[in-house]
Amino acid sequence: MAGPVQSIERAAAILRLLAGGSRRLGLGEIASALGLAKGTTHGILRTLQGVGFVEQDETTGKYQLGAALLHLGTSYLDVNELRSRSLNWADALAARSGEAVRLGTPLEGQVLVVHHVFRPDDTLQTLDVGTLLPLHASSLGKVLLAFGTAALDPPEEGLRAYTRHTLVDPGELNRALAEIRELGWGAEVQEMSMGDAGIAAPIRGHGGLVVGAIGLSGPVERICDTRGRPLPALVALLRDAARAISRDLGAARW
Amino acid sequence: MAGPVQSIERAAAILRLLAGGSRRLGLGEIASALGLAKGTTHGILRTLQGVGFVEQDETTGKYQLGAALLHLGTSYLDVNELRSRSLNWADALAARSGEAVRLGTPLEGQVLVVHHVFRPDDTLQTLDVGTLLPLHASSLGKVLLAFGTAALDPPEEGLRAYTRHTLVDPGELNRALAEIRELGWGAEVQEMSMGDAGIAAPIRGHGGLVVGAIGLSGPVERICDTRGRPLPALVALLRDAARAISRDLGAARW
Repeated sequence: MAGPVQSIERAAAILRLLAGGSRRLGLGEIASALGLAKGTTHGILRTLQGVGFVEQDETTGKYQLGAALLHLGTSYLDVNELRSRSLNWADALAARSGEAVRLGTPLEGQVLVVHHVFRPDDTLQTLDVGTLLPLHASSLGKVLLAFGTAALDPPEEGLRAYTRHTLVDPGELNRALAEIRELGWGAEVQEMSMGDAGIAAPIRGHGGLVVGAIGLSGPVERICDTRGRPLPALVALLRDAARAISRDLGAARW
Repeated sequence: MAGPVQSIERAAAILRLLAGGSRRLGLGEIASALGLAKGTTHGILRTLQGVGFVEQDETTGKYQLGAALLHLGTSYLDVNELRSRSLNWADALAARSGEAVRLGTPLEGQVLVVHHVFRPDDTLQTLDVGTLLPLHASSLGKVLLAFGTAALDPPEEGLRAYTRHTLVDPGELNRALAEIRELGWGAEVQEMSMGDAGIAAPIRGHGGLVVGAIGLSGPVERICDTRGRPLPALVALLRDAARAISRDLGAARW
């Protein structure tokens, strides 16, 4: 059987590079970041430009992601069964809890937000769909880690401490994950940004495998009691929604 | 200079195929749709799967778009200057007009919606970002056509009539486009779906070139008077916003 197609892998690496960091890069910067010859890189970039995956700024000559990717990305949302089965439940959960709801699935050692229902009030909120969250510092990520749906690939320098509450010690994180498995849900309290908290529960598909997570998040004083523990009423609403979606996805009762 | 990289072009064609139509396709269906050998198609699909651009359903073996595309697509939104310069103006326009606001840019003979502000009321609305609209039947598209930013590539059987008001006759459409150029804005009244209407104005960038369009849309009775003509007050608000964004993008006064 033939191996992977090298030029496609290189094209994907260029797109990933443009999606992170500075997002507008010159030919030389791209070639050296990926360790490729300039000629090879230029051929790939021209092809990516031809199919609309990359655009070149006329003034600076720098490359950036192209419009065709947006349509592909939102088309992905339409075929994502986890998301489509969850839409109504996520709306209902936001309405009942009064908090923002997000759905996450693992992607490249992070959590990809595939759905986001705003907190039902009039505050200005930013859509998080398509955003990547860290596994160890988000409630969605901790749940995906706890149930083996995602695996941590920590850099050599260790896990990043977003706040002083982030679990960066592997032993401490493992104990937290064991507790999540026991309880059937997980929390993140000021572990990614001070003042914010979230709770999440696993969503199971066919055969009971955890395929994603659903979570509530908001200001810590709305999610937790004065001692920093998630409010039992919110946890109950969340778990009911997670169970309902799992049933819709074909998971047997567990 | 080397030509485009064939395997990347084929990979892009597979992704476009999966983004349209039935969206879950088997190996044989993909190979025959693109006129490729099964072995070649399989190698490309496996590579696309390896980079997260394609997912394979375990039960059916069919292929669909992958999660990595969602992150690339939303990253595109972050680098889109038209969109980032328009965010505040679009919010203000929705608040002042009481109607939904959308921003469009041309993509592959259609209009790609790159931003969407919901009508500021409590009704249930679906986010249109990433959606493709027809050039000849949307106000955004007619404006892009009128100012030469997009070109029509009608199929042999002619332009699609979405309603009995859709402009499918080339002569009639050309007259409408000439009027849009003269007025500096365009309307679509029940041309894409009965009961709905929209108005749009061009956004200009450096050198005065039209780079996109901004539009208001909603139920025809809110956008138009009883004779089906767009309300002058809405048109004025829209044109003010389009001019403000154009100035921010570096267009001189015209």
